[in-house]
Amino acid sequence: MGELLWPGESRAGDVFTDEAFLAAMVRVEQAWLDALAGAGLAAPGVRLVAPPLDEVAAGAESGGNPVIPLAKALRSQSTDAHRGLTSQDVVDTALVLCLRDAVDRVLVEVERQARALARLTRAHRGSVMAGRTLTQYAVPITFGLKAATWLSALDEAVRELRRVRAGLPVQIGGAAGTLAAVVELARAHADPVGAAAALVRAVAVDLDLQGGSRWHTRRTPLTTVADALVTLSDAWGHLAGDIALLSRPEIAELREGAGGGSSTMPGKANPVLSILLRRHALAAPQLASTLHTAAATYVDERPDGGWHVEWDTLATLARRSVVAASQAADLLEGLVVDADRMAARASEVEETLHAEQRSIRASAGSATGPAEGAYLGATDLFIDNILERAARVWGDL
Amino acid sequence: MGELLWPGESRAGDVFTDEAFLAAMVRVEQAWLDALAGAGLAAPGVRLVAPPLDEVAAGAESGGNPVIPLAKALRSQSTDAHRGLTSQDVVDTALVLCLRDAVDRVLVEVERQARALARLTRAHRGSVMAGRTLTQYAVPITFGLKAATWLSALDEAVRELRRVRAGLPVQIGGAAGTLAAVVELARAHADPVGAAAALVRAVAVDLDLQGGSRWHTRRTPLTTVADALVTLSDAWGHLAGDIALLSRPEIAELREGAGGGSSTMPGKANPVLSILLRRHALAAPQLASTLHTAAATYVDERPDGGWHVEWDTLATLARRSVVAASQAADLLEGLVVDADRMAARASEVEETLHAEQRSIRASAGSATGPAEGAYLGATDLFIDNILERAARVWGDL
Amino acid sequence: MGELLWPGESRAGDVFTDEAFLAAMVRVEQAWLDALAGAGLAAPGVRLVAPPLDEVAAGAESGGNPVIPLAKALRSQSTDAHRGLTSQDVVDTALVLCLRDAVDRVLVEVERQARALARLTRAHRGSVMAGRTLTQYAVPITFGLKAATWLSALDEAVRELRRVRAGLPVQIGGAAGTLAAVVELARAHADPVGAAAALVRAVAVDLDLQGGSRWHTRRTPLTTVADALVTLSDAWGHLAGDIALLSRPEIAELREGAGGGSSTMPGKANPVLSILLRRHALAAPQLASTLHTAAATYVDERPDGGWHVEWDTLATLARRSVVAASQAADLLEGLVVDADRMAARASEVEETLHAEQRSIRASAGSATGPAEGAYLGATDLFIDNILERAARVWGDL
Amino acid sequence: MGELLWPGESRAGDVFTDEAFLAAMVRVEQAWLDALAGAGLAAPGVRLVAPPLDEVAAGAESGGNPVIPLAKALRSQSTDAHRGLTSQDVVDTALVLCLRDAVDRVLVEVERQARALARLTRAHRGSVMAGRTLTQYAVPITFGLKAATWLSALDEAVRELRRVRAGLPVQIGGAAGTLAAVVELARAHADPVGAAAALVRAVAVDLDLQGGSRWHTRRTPLTTVADALVTLSDAWGHLAGDIALLSRPEIAELREGAGGGSSTMPGKANPVLSILLRRHALAAPQLASTLHTAAATYVDERPDGGWHVEWDTLATLARRSVVAASQAADLLEGLVVDADRMAARASEVEETLHAEQRSIRASAGSATGPAEGAYLGATDLFIDNILERAARVWGDL
Repeated sequence: MGELLWPGESRAGDVFTDEAFLAAMVRVEQAWLDALAGAGLAAPGVRLVAPPLDEVAAGAESGGNPVIPLAKALRSQSTDAHRGLTSQDVVDTALVLCLRDAVDRVLVEVERQARALARLTRAHRGSVMAGRTLTQYAVPITFGLKAATWLSALDEAVRELRRVRAGLPVQIGGAAGTLAAVVELARAHADPVGAAAALVRAVAVDLDLQGGSRWHTRRTPLTTVADALVTLSDAWGHLAGDIALLSRPEIAELREGAGGGSSTMPGKANPVLSILLRRHALAAPQLASTLHTAAATYVDERPDGGWHVEWDTLATLARRSVVAASQAADLLEGLVVDADRMAARASEVEETLHAEQRSIRASAGSATGPAEGAYLGATDLFIDNILERAARVWGDL
Repeated sequence: MGELLWPGESRAGDVFTDEAFLAAMVRVEQAWLDALAGAGLAAPGVRLVAPPLDEVAAGAESGGNPVIPLAKALRSQSTDAHRGLTSQDVVDTALVLCLRDAVDRVLVEVERQARALARLTRAHRGSVMAGRTLTQYAVPITFGLKAATWLSALDEAVRELRRVRAGLPVQIGGAAGTLAAVVELARAHADPVGAAAALVRAVAVDLDLQGGSRWHTRRTPLTTVADALVTLSDAWGHLAGDIALLSRPEIAELREGAGGGSSTMPGKANPVLSILLRRHALAAPQLASTLHTAAATYVDERPDGGWHVEWDTLATLARRSVVAASQAADLLEGLVVDADRMAARASEVEETLHAEQRSIRASAGSATGPAEGAYLGATDLFIDNILERAARVWGDL
Repeated sequence: MGELLWPGESRAGDVFTDEAFLAAMVRVEQAWLDALAGAGLAAPGVRLVAPPLDEVAAGAESGGNPVIPLAKALRSQSTDAHRGLTSQDVVDTALVLCLRDAVDRVLVEVERQARALARLTRAHRGSVMAGRTLTQYAVPITFGLKAATWLSALDEAVRELRRVRAGLPVQIGGAAGTLAAVVELARAHADPVGAAAALVRAVAVDLDLQGGSRWHTRRTPLTTVADALVTLSDAWGHLAGDIALLSRPEIAELREGAGGGSSTMPGKANPVLSILLRRHALAAPQLASTLHTAAATYVDERPDGGWHVEWDTLATLARRSVVAASQAADLLEGLVVDADRMAARASEVEETLHAEQRSIRASAGSATGPAEGAYLGATDLFIDNILERAARVWGDL
Repeated sequence: MGELLWPGESRAGDVFTDEAFLAAMVRVEQAWLDALAGAGLAAPGVRLVAPPLDEVAAGAESGGNPVIPLAKALRSQSTDAHRGLTSQDVVDTALVLCLRDAVDRVLVEVERQARALARLTRAHRGSVMAGRTLTQYAVPITFGLKAATWLSALDEAVRELRRVRAGLPVQIGGAAGTLAAVVELARAHADPVGAAAALVRAVAVDLDLQGGSRWHTRRTPLTTVADALVTLSDAWGHLAGDIALLSRPEIAELREGAGGGSSTMPGKANPVLSILLRRHALAAPQLASTLHTAAATYVDERPDGGWHVEWDTLATLARRSVVAASQAADLLEGLVVDADRMAARASEVEETLHAEQRSIRASAGSATGPAEGAYLGATDLFIDNILERAARVWGDL
């Protein structure tokens, strides 16, 4: 995935690249070595140095994962390195570290989005526009309510994303998830099992992850984050779809701050950020679905393919999420709202937008009076509720 | 979906059938009518009767959803019926009711599974067997640990499923999510908006759902339940894959209580329940993915297709989940464990299973001593932890 | 899948229902029995009668497929029935028969669509309208070209669908795909293998299917049809998306002949058929993907789950395809084109639509002359080519 | 996608990288410029030079695609460059060129696979082994038949892949698919439309692609290749699943030539290539499904997201296909077959494998005689047929 084939890709920077993954794996190995040293099971004070990426890459395929060449290289630095771990411990914990970096980047960008939406909500609390359902005019809404509704989706997705992020666990279980090698290493201790468990806790603390529960064959730590990222992409897909639609020249109620140009048609201003967000939203669900399919085909104490398909799938979803988060923030911060146009249209099609109101009045026997009032129902109440809930997530917006 | 094309389908009974969906829609309309009556906005004491399914079915396509013919039929019973609601209110809330029924059925069955697994875990805490990774022998485990690991996946999935079930919300927003029609109906009240909000709360209480937040364009109430059901199906896929594998005649460490026969080969005993569970686990992720794809393509105050694709997709996922939950419970309750065979194999390949242990001892300078002990690491500790956590979910198991 | 949860579902009638599948299985068993009888391996003249659906359904789960109870029932009618076959032979060949029925129904409806599109193409060859790209005005097109482009997608998809339909094969291989039981039955023949192969050919001729090649572990006969049906659904999704968009009131260049109403808003006319087509197009790709995932996980001479997930997935895709095909035909036959509105808009935004033309002229040094001509390029040539190719598929349209 | 997160990734070399895509885009622009020059519409003899990747990348996002910065750079080399084209023409035709490179690389590797399988088929025509269905012993087969069956799946997939490769078309249509700009450029010609069409044909000939049919809103040229690549990955998934299974130590009938090691367990030999193939097969279907979902959401003369999601999705599928093709060739060339072990097991479980045979004889009244013969049915005939068909695809194997 590069900038030409996925424009905007560089926004993800060094998140979950091969380089970042290598660094994360080394960090895991270091944390483990430090824990061993702290327990008197390894020489203290060793600082592991990441081997060159090329060297690890060159050895990754023959064993099916990059830890085998990595461990070999690290053992040349310290014979204690990697002792007691299995490849999956290193890969899985490193996946979690990379994923957390991505999530943290996403959360920062979503806060920008939330601030922009809160501002739009307040600014356009009274901007009446046509509500539309099934492509046709329905009843009036305000643009403030629309922005608030987008915000409520972000609010909900972020609560979930924070929750699963907080639960991200270390994975240390050894060859078959029993910690047998670690207990063996600690056999001189009075309580080797307790000592082994303490080592895992120490690594969890060091890496600021949850500890204690192995998940080498239970992939919810990955799938729940993936699902949460897809829930966010659904929210972006929805708002981007609305913006792309309302930016159509026949509607023209919204406009991206800086539209994209054309290679041939002068003056064209395309809603590029909306389009690129929709792109992500169309692909993300099936990336998460691949992770679930993988999880569903796990067998044994480590499966024959299901594990391996996760790494790049997860990295792709994570990087694209960072890209989309950043694009969505730019989009919302730059969004231009033409409230006059909204009002003009609402006025122009007032009869349609108020047909339901008239029908209700007619059936209520008050048909003789004119339709009156904005017919906006509980719009302000909904906006207030959404802003209040959002403030609980992000503080003052 | 019938029994021939999805054997076991009848286990789902009347969950989320067209009939159940019709009944749920009528229940929503009744709750709304009762709320209106309670507020003096409709005649009290009316009991709506579901029109014949055929009648509703006959009118469902022309308007694109079944509420139009339903509302027409109900209005012939009471002119107050459906007043203030939009089709999506009725469909979405009815979807939630049907989904909740399915989830409740699933949860009952998962508790059966949990009990069976807790029993297996305790019974086989000491049943040593070969751990296997990447298809090959790794280090020893116990079958108790394997069963406990399956249990831990159910534990985690059920916590999530209960959480999202508890959050299932009513959807009442009117034509464009503003409650405009309801506020209009309540315009004689001192506080029409407050009265409208109170009506929604009354329906939520009546239906035992959460209230207050519209989700007509934010589909997380559906997608999060779908994701949780897929998380469960991942867990079933994993345990069913293990059982199918360990039931192979060359391994023969497990056996389904009642294997399935063959139409031509006498004496064949196939692991049918495991196979049917794997079937579900292969399909479920993409059903949830379809729901996310739909959510991502929502536009306007009601979208042009994304909404409509949800209904049958959700019903299929829900019904299949009930079927699989019931099959998994039967499977685990009937599972036959051949601990002798496990032990015999572990003994036979002892040298392989303990190669890591010998390697660690050699590098620890204790190479002269024989490999000794079961090399089971923290297996018992993990089992204890998992059983303890499970007890917090299901009580004593 | 019923009419309430998938409005329009009844358009599929009895295609690929449980009942149809049972009938197809009996037809396969009959063809096989007839072939046996023709070779002197069974008593001649037996007419098998389908057992009650309930009876087969009741026995379907315990063996994991419906053939075990079916074969038992048929053997009570003739001890020769099912002899030499395996469950998979009957299920797979019956799947093919049901699938072919669905495809044939689809093809009839697509021809209706093609006729409607050819008519629209001719009628609106000169109806200039705004071309739009990335939501914005681009350069002029004609509605005739748009209709022809939709037609070209149908043309291509139908060629593929006809091709794979023509290749639909019988599956007869016996328990592990060797025809061992059949050869055993024919052991009194001079050439038992030749006799067995002749039996398969006879069944293929009887059922009008291709013969000779086993596909019990190679699922392309199913996945290629599924892919072709998805290719069609892509085409419908595209045209339905265009129609839904151009039916928006701000654009209003198209209109469904009979729009759908609202349960609450008088006068609303929603593009219901377009919406229901988009629904199908959003779900179909992932149904085919499930079939591929199943195929990719086949192991042994019959797999442990991959086979079982195909049946209902395929039936759902097939039935929904018939529904969508019929809806698309109605949609296109009834489509109302407002060529005046198209022309008015094209005229109104003429400056934008011709910006590219002016730019080219400017760069060509002919800037001084006014933009002139319709700037429609090779539109007529493309239309002619598409109509000509379509005539090769459907004859005179 | 790099070697650490997708081991083996470097096997794809420079296929469909950002660099290759840039080169392909320049090649398209050059072919177009040459065609213009050939028609006297541009200065002759200009050789375009690809601008630095970084420069194109830096400008890709603002317009939503890489052609805008590319065209700008090329116009600084020749003012005639890109004249008459639209971004989509360049991107789509370049996608096709990159895809064709990938397909060609795949086809070479599949021929290696076919040769290996033909050799295995012949060598093991008589190697009897247990057939297995639904995880259990069924009736005997030979390993030759199993290898031939794998070959037949490759044969079928390659026919399809060659067919769609041969149909890969150029896409040149200009801003809205009308060739208006090109016709405008050619307006001095007697037949400007004919001249424009001739230019397209010239480019098609130059690039060795099919010409004439625009597909800017009809994505079958991409989806059919994707479907064919998934059909291949299904075939690899199937054979890899079989090999991984038969490599289990309890079965041990097959073995990868060079198994992968472990980071901690000495002596472990994992079926790494099979595992990495299964990885691809689990992910590929959903990549193709994403392309179909994109195609189904196309609207207008260029859509708002559906187009953009295709590029990286297609590149990922293409590169992974090349990787898997190469891995599968290595796997099959190196596969070690333990025919003695197969024979020993078949002998050991002879009673089970021949139960069907005995049952047939019993029902045929020849129960008194012993089961005799290999009970291999038409195995040799099937092998002969498959080898013969394969020879029509690849010549002598």
